[in-house]
Amino acid sequence: MDRVSVVTDIRQANQNAARENRTLFDKHGSCVINLMSAPGAGKTSVLEATIREIAPSYKVAVIEGDLETTFDSDRIRALGVEAHQITTGSVCHLDARMVAKALASFPTDGVDLLVIENVGNLVCPAEFNLGEDLRVMVYSVVEGAEKPKKYPLMFHTSDVVLLNKIDLLPYSGVALSELLRNVVEVNPRAAIFPISCRTGQGLEGWIAWLMNELKSRRSEALSISKT
Amino acid sequence: MDRVSVVTDIRQANQNAARENRTLFDKHGSCVINLMSAPGAGKTSVLEATIREIAPSYKVAVIEGDLETTFDSDRIRALGVEAHQITTGSVCHLDARMVAKALASFPTDGVDLLVIENVGNLVCPAEFNLGEDLRVMVYSVVEGAEKPKKYPLMFHTSDVVLLNKIDLLPYSGVALSELLRNVVEVNPRAAIFPISCRTGQGLEGWIAWLMNELKSRRSEALSISKT
Repeated sequence: MDRVSVVTDIRQANQNAARENRTLFDKHGSCVINLMSAPGAGKTSVLEATIREIAPSYKVAVIEGDLETTFDSDRIRALGVEAHQITTGSVCHLDARMVAKALASFPTDGVDLLVIENVGNLVCPAEFNLGEDLRVMVYSVVEGAEKPKKYPLMFHTSDVVLLNKIDLLPYSGVALSELLRNVVEVNPRAAIFPISCRTGQGLEGWIAWLMNELKSRRSEALSISKT
Repeated sequence: MDRVSVVTDIRQANQNAARENRTLFDKHGSCVINLMSAPGAGKTSVLEATIREIAPSYKVAVIEGDLETTFDSDRIRALGVEAHQITTGSVCHLDARMVAKALASFPTDGVDLLVIENVGNLVCPAEFNLGEDLRVMVYSVVEGAEKPKKYPLMFHTSDVVLLNKIDLLPYSGVALSELLRNVVEVNPRAAIFPISCRTGQGLEGWIAWLMNELKSRRSEALSISKT
């Protein structure tokens, strides 16, 4: 087996596992988010803020992916939400088989919203479908306005782009208008929300978007079960 | 060939190419820095500031690694320094063979300092030796104080850790003391410089460190050539 075949083989194995995850999520009626970003952009902070608003109305569960430590799953459990930690060691992304393995010991039936927080990396996670419904990426605005063009794949494949840390804009020299233009250029179909997890600014737009998504899935499921 | 053998094979091929790069750098008397960070932490800004101080005394050249665009090499050339762009497409790190290929068309004889700016990624680049003398990483303090423990390999293998964007500390809620403690815990032998490329704060320490490194290499080379 040469290198190209191995890469093709890994991709194919991932697609097969993603399809099986998808079947399981559909069976359980769970909406699944693959939450991605570079390290420190604010994935866990977004998740905490989201859980606080969503958990009273919907059952939420979280799978945390990290190279090392259980810091993030500890933060989620502190909110009273079940969290399963995947520690990847040196692997720079989650793949569908890691998620499948987690699902074997972390049952998600009855979960309305499952968030899979990926390893912090703006490159590799975007290449691996986990079987998710939605890709949500968090981008820290202080990382610069030109990054959507330099790291296009994650921006291009995300359904939602959360531009976090806008409270730092006045001190960062980054122009939000230029960043927005670049995001739209790379992905004109994404829903974009400038937010600050620190001040709470802009979070209501993202929460409303997600609530609406969950509501329409619930009523769709109800109408299917009635027919 | 199974997957494990392929990974071993890729690592071995990288080590061989790194050794050949190393031989070439030694022959040319170049000090080579592998400059790494997450996206947007400020690698190119550090490089610009460094070039401004170093280039009057030493011949500097740059190899830029990016997934897409030539933004960074354009910035370096604007300073009158030669720069070669490697565009990796979807590959999330530079490897020694990419650098060897670049060196074939980008001669570095007579270059005192060659900086290889890696792809923005806090995980994968740390796994690939390029044949460098020094690993220098840039970390944006607003990414949080706990990241050295969450992404230990790059912190652990770096000779120098530049903690950038300290001008944003008062607005970020990140405690520099806690970040420093975590860096030291993961890598007690690294030289650590808190800096701000935006204000220039702290850069003199890093520049002095590098100048000293280049000076001692030059006098070492002179004493060898005399014997």
